[in-house]
Amino acid sequence: MTPARPPGGPPALPTRDSYTFWLPVTVRWADMDSLGHVNHAKYFTYLESARTAFFDAVGLWRFREHPRQGIAVVQAECSFRQQVRHPAELEVGLRVTRIGGKSFTLEYGIFRKGTDEVVGDGSSVAVWMDFDASRALPIGPEMRRLLEAYRGSAA
Amino acid sequence: MTPARPPGGPPALPTRDSYTFWLPVTVRWADMDSLGHVNHAKYFTYLESARTAFFDAVGLWRFREHPRQGIAVVQAECSFRQQVRHPAELEVGLRVTRIGGKSFTLEYGIFRKGTDEVVGDGSSVAVWMDFDASRALPIGPEMRRLLEAYRGSAA
Amino acid sequence: MTPARPPGGPPALPTRDSYTFWLPVTVRWADMDSLGHVNHAKYFTYLESARTAFFDAVGLWRFREHPRQGIAVVQAECSFRQQVRHPAELEVGLRVTRIGGKSFTLEYGIFRKGTDEVVGDGSSVAVWMDFDASRALPIGPEMRRLLEAYRGSAA
Amino acid sequence: MTPARPPGGPPALPTRDSYTFWLPVTVRWADMDSLGHVNHAKYFTYLESARTAFFDAVGLWRFREHPRQGIAVVQAECSFRQQVRHPAELEVGLRVTRIGGKSFTLEYGIFRKGTDEVVGDGSSVAVWMDFDASRALPIGPEMRRLLEAYRGSAA
Repeated sequence: MTPARPPGGPPALPTRDSYTFWLPVTVRWADMDSLGHVNHAKYFTYLESARTAFFDAVGLWRFREHPRQGIAVVQAECSFRQQVRHPAELEVGLRVTRIGGKSFTLEYGIFRKGTDEVVGDGSSVAVWMDFDASRALPIGPEMRRLLEAYRGSAA
Repeated sequence: MTPARPPGGPPALPTRDSYTFWLPVTVRWADMDSLGHVNHAKYFTYLESARTAFFDAVGLWRFREHPRQGIAVVQAECSFRQQVRHPAELEVGLRVTRIGGKSFTLEYGIFRKGTDEVVGDGSSVAVWMDFDASRALPIGPEMRRLLEAYRGSAA
Repeated sequence: MTPARPPGGPPALPTRDSYTFWLPVTVRWADMDSLGHVNHAKYFTYLESARTAFFDAVGLWRFREHPRQGIAVVQAECSFRQQVRHPAELEVGLRVTRIGGKSFTLEYGIFRKGTDEVVGDGSSVAVWMDFDASRALPIGPEMRRLLEAYRGSAA
Repeated sequence: MTPARPPGGPPALPTRDSYTFWLPVTVRWADMDSLGHVNHAKYFTYLESARTAFFDAVGLWRFREHPRQGIAVVQAECSFRQQVRHPAELEVGLRVTRIGGKSFTLEYGIFRKGTDEVVGDGSSVAVWMDFDASRALPIGPEMRRLLEAYRGSAA
């Protein structure tokens, strides 16, 4: 699929070496919709799988002051570059590209396993939330250091 | 939730009067994730529900020359403005904001039913695909006229 | 679809008058799988929608002694009588058919809206759980009375 | 969880050696519901993953006389023995336990990876369908032979 790109869309496909964390994802038969390919919303679930695995791996949860604090995604975006059909094995690459005062941006590339073939790429903006207060908290120096270690070059 | 907005993010919340097609959506208990709110990927499913209802309502499918032609989403984006918990009734507003040579852009607002309260807003770029050829086709004059009739003011 | 029934399967289709609680369900486009019909696992989600709406409606949650008590499904079963395609409007009927010491059985019928046409029917066994202790608790007299009020005739 | 078993429920937990086909399943964060454990409907998706992998592995699709023939599940059942939380690695075992004239029964056990710990077990009745005719077809001698090769001892 070589679709017309929207104005302002990403100019180029990402390459594997720009990502700093990886998660393998096995496509499930149930991920496909009635068009016979993986439904576009499942790409966001694959990104979420990488994101939660990343947060687990780096120990982000230790910054919780109480159980109702955690990460909330406030914006997400994905470009669907190729149709994917079950069975398929994918790998999601992740990198930190922006760390602001209260939010940070993660970028992702979804590749066919062991190849440079990009089936999708996207980004998400996350905040450290107090869910009970429904309020984004400042990102402290330690969390910032941790995220910096996984910074990758933006596309 | 008043999260820090990413650079270049949407500057303002959408208003109801800018949308030209509406679909009510009932939140399911299963739409919630382990954070106790509607999972972010479900927002994209709600947008998809509005989009497919719109295509059904306007009779887009009659432009098919064979059954393996149809709409493919090539990019999607959503901002998550409020947490939503089951039970909840929502309404998704949709508008056409760009009609290019081979692609068009739809914008969406997700409101709590009967209110101006925006829980999410986003956009998607779609193409008219030949799925077997994996190729985007030009948007013909009739399809263009049809889409024009649902044009709304961009945010 | 008139499939061969498994040995011991339900002998007859349920009728609407045997149900004591109802929930309308709107089929989503995303509920369909790559066979172009509603995926079988979504029938269980429809039953869950009815079940959680029932628990909300009757105020079951007031029996909680702490937030980590609630209902857990320990067994579920469904017969898929008809293929369903989007767009479709359904109604799920629910009845209580057994109230034991620590568990109770709900039966369900999924009908096309406003008709006697059954697209699926099933049952689930639920317990009142203490999730932290991973232990089913006895069903007290008040909860029993509440469930009795929704008893329907078993198929 | 040691729930009260429903009347007629399976008397004993399955053991690994009775299964004839296996599929590893990685639990996704998104599989959990707002109770913080894998949603019960996802167990059916895990069984479906094993079933479709089995059909792929044994080459069931070669019995298709046209693309609109295939397998339809007409009944499914699952007992939920343990709560599962992400992250978790599971293995689904599958066996053929009944081959009738027009339908066959598969039984499944979901184990924690590399252990005898059963988190769920269930069964499904499937037919070889002509989807256009909405009709179950007789199971021919070759398909029967193929299924016989994966027969396991019923629980």
